Amino acid sequence: MSQPVAEEEVFDANPAGHMLGAEGNAALVEVIQARLNTMIGKSSGFVETLPAQIQARIQALQDLQESHDEHESEYQKELKALQAKYDALYAPLYEERKAIVNGEKEVPAPKEAEGKAKEEEGVPAGIPEFWLGVLRANRVIGESLSEKDEEVLKHLTDISVAELAPEADEDGDEIGGFKLIFHFSPNPFFDQPTLEKTYYIYEEDGEPMLHRAEGTKIDWATGKNPTVKVMRKKAKPGKGGRGTAPKMLTKLEPVPSFFNFFTPPQEPEEDEEIDEEDLEELRNALEEDFEIGETIRTRIIPHAVKWYTGEANEDDEDDDEDDDEDDDVDEDDDEDDDEDDDEDAADEKEIKQALKGGEGDKGEKPPECKQQ
Amino acid sequence: MSQPVAEEEVFDANPAGHMLGAEGNAALVEVIQARLNTMIGKSSGFVETLPAQIQARIQALQDLQESHDEHESEYQKELKALQAKYDALYAPLYEERKAIVNGEKEVPAPKEAEGKAKEEEGVPAGIPEFWLGVLRANRVIGESLSEKDEEVLKHLTDISVAELAPEADEDGDEIGGFKLIFHFSPNPFFDQPTLEKTYYIYEEDGEPMLHRAEGTKIDWATGKNPTVKVMRKKAKPGKGGRGTAPKMLTKLEPVPSFFNFFTPPQEPEEDEEIDEEDLEELRNALEEDFEIGETIRTRIIPHAVKWYTGEANEDDEDDDEDDDEDDDVDEDDDEDDDEDDDEDAADEKEIKQALKGGEGDKGEKPPECKQQ
Repeated sequence: MSQPVAEEEVFDANPAGHMLGAEGNAALVEVIQARLNTMIGKSSGFVETLPAQIQARIQALQDLQESHDEHESEYQKELKALQAKYDALYAPLYEERKAIVNGEKEVPAPKEAEGKAKEEEGVPAGIPEFWLGVLRANRVIGESLSEKDEEVLKHLTDISVAELAPEADEDGDEIGGFKLIFHFSPNPFFDQPTLEKTYYIYEEDGEPMLHRAEGTKIDWATGKNPTVKVMRKKAKPGKGGRGTAPKMLTKLEPVPSFFNFFTPPQEPEEDEEIDEEDLEELRNALEEDFEIGETIRTRIIPHAVKWYTGEANEDDEDDDEDDDEDDDVDEDDDEDDDEDDDEDAADEKEIKQALKGGEGDKGEKPPECKQQ
Repeated sequence: MSQPVAEEEVFDANPAGHMLGAEGNAALVEVIQARLNTMIGKSSGFVETLPAQIQARIQALQDLQESHDEHESEYQKELKALQAKYDALYAPLYEERKAIVNGEKEVPAPKEAEGKAKEEEGVPAGIPEFWLGVLRANRVIGESLSEKDEEVLKHLTDISVAELAPEADEDGDEIGGFKLIFHFSPNPFFDQPTLEKTYYIYEEDGEPMLHRAEGTKIDWATGKNPTVKVMRKKAKPGKGGRGTAPKMLTKLEPVPSFFNFFTPPQEPEEDEEIDEEDLEELRNALEEDFEIGETIRTRIIPHAVKWYTGEANEDDEDDDEDDDEDDDVDEDDDEDDDEDDDEDAADEKEIKQALKGGEGDKGEKPPECKQQ
């Protein structure tokens, strides 16, 4: 929050010129600077308190900034056009992938396997449970899958992404973003053919900011909701007469589930109080939610088959091979040492992967934890 | 880490065709699936255990993936060219900014201020302490500045960025990245004209990953190092003879300082042990370090004058104005309510800013906390 500068606090750095003799100058500059130090970056009004010559220089910088920002806005346009061009190239590949995965398009068996393929009668169409396999292969998402989740995700036939055309909201901000669409075959869990998760994003001073996230409300069939478990307990005694069976109360308790992804954490209402700890928790939850969305959009959808086959995790195996080579060379090492090496290699790998740093495209920034 | 699959664990999903009668098929598919479920994404060898027809379909997906990846690699090239084009447009603007800030280029005073400007004799050249003001205006960096840091940063004359041309390392990985260059005028703190911080980044399966960060070792003049404080304590008694003055020991203790940015956290050596807690701490430190570097590169350098004047933080003020308008309308509100509203608005703002979510350019990803 910027501190409003009280009128009497504004130091008049533009007094009559005769006060600015050469000798008093150094001291004056120091006083100006000391006062400005508490104001720089906090109020757009402090520039007016500077000597006219310095104001003119700042004005020149602002003109340069304007040229820069015009270029930057052109860059954003060109970048969007570039992305659209490649999205159009990817689209038919994703369509064909979907058709093959779901058995809508058959693939001729390669010559050398033709004999075998003919013998295999009754092989199911497409690649059964392909997308469940894809999601399971990603460590974070995979670990979030309960047994009940997996039963539902066996019916997942595709994940697609749609960019949102920016629209002005009530404040005049342009809100864009993207929507993840989970496609399902008919299943006993819900009737909806697609479940969606939408991230609304706006730009602030050239920076993308998450506005909010929304998910499809899932109409779970009775008893099929994997995000809750049914708790039954006896009603408190005294409600029924003596000798009657105790009344049973049913309560739904939330449990961890992948499908909680469709009920993203919400910012508190304007009139809601929230303490520092809850805010921190909310911030983490929102970040994690956004990270999973980004992972699905930028890593899983474009490279789905690599996740399914394990190629997306192949680098781990390269490491293993390296370790093996080391072991071959250092034949003096006893077994304990080898184990230590393996653990360290695992740790190191984990650190590198913790650090998946982006070069961060100009104007398209990674999510950050704090206002900087 | 991928689990190596032991030979006897591999389920033979390709037995002789006569075992695959239509009736036994559903059950068999289930058994295959159950075994594969533990293998998908973990080993690139499991595909060979699938029926030949399904293998052919996966091969078709892999061919599609290859087409996709060729497009993706073209996209990366076009993106780099686009960035280079705009970097070339920005460069002369940054040069001119540097010249004005440091008084190497004078700016004519605007007509209306000409009289005033003439009267102001002895106004210092350029915009004194411009970059200190810029850094102070950014909340995270500003809060990290000690009084000693600020004395040094008064001599900061520019911050520039240089992209690193990718070079192959010993493993054949292409390592690129970027270098932040802090330019200083001659000063009593160190003789180096520039201090640098370099982030080395490599790509893994189309994903940028931080390889390591390096900073200039600063040759601080004696007693001028803001990253340490001198601790003096008496030596343990018994070292000097009776009656002699106790010997004083001098110890340098690290203290928080902006200049610790030039000694980034380091990954442990391969043969070093590290426990889970230290690893988490290291991960956070590395992420924070990278975030500050990214902020300087993508937000501060391109928009320096906006930080200096406070415009970069102006959105906070917009919020304040909105609140004021609300207050005018809700005249029934008592003062306490108004204060609550203000606090909530601040909280809400903080959340939004916590969520600075990027749309994440294809192939250029935000840093993430975990391997996904």
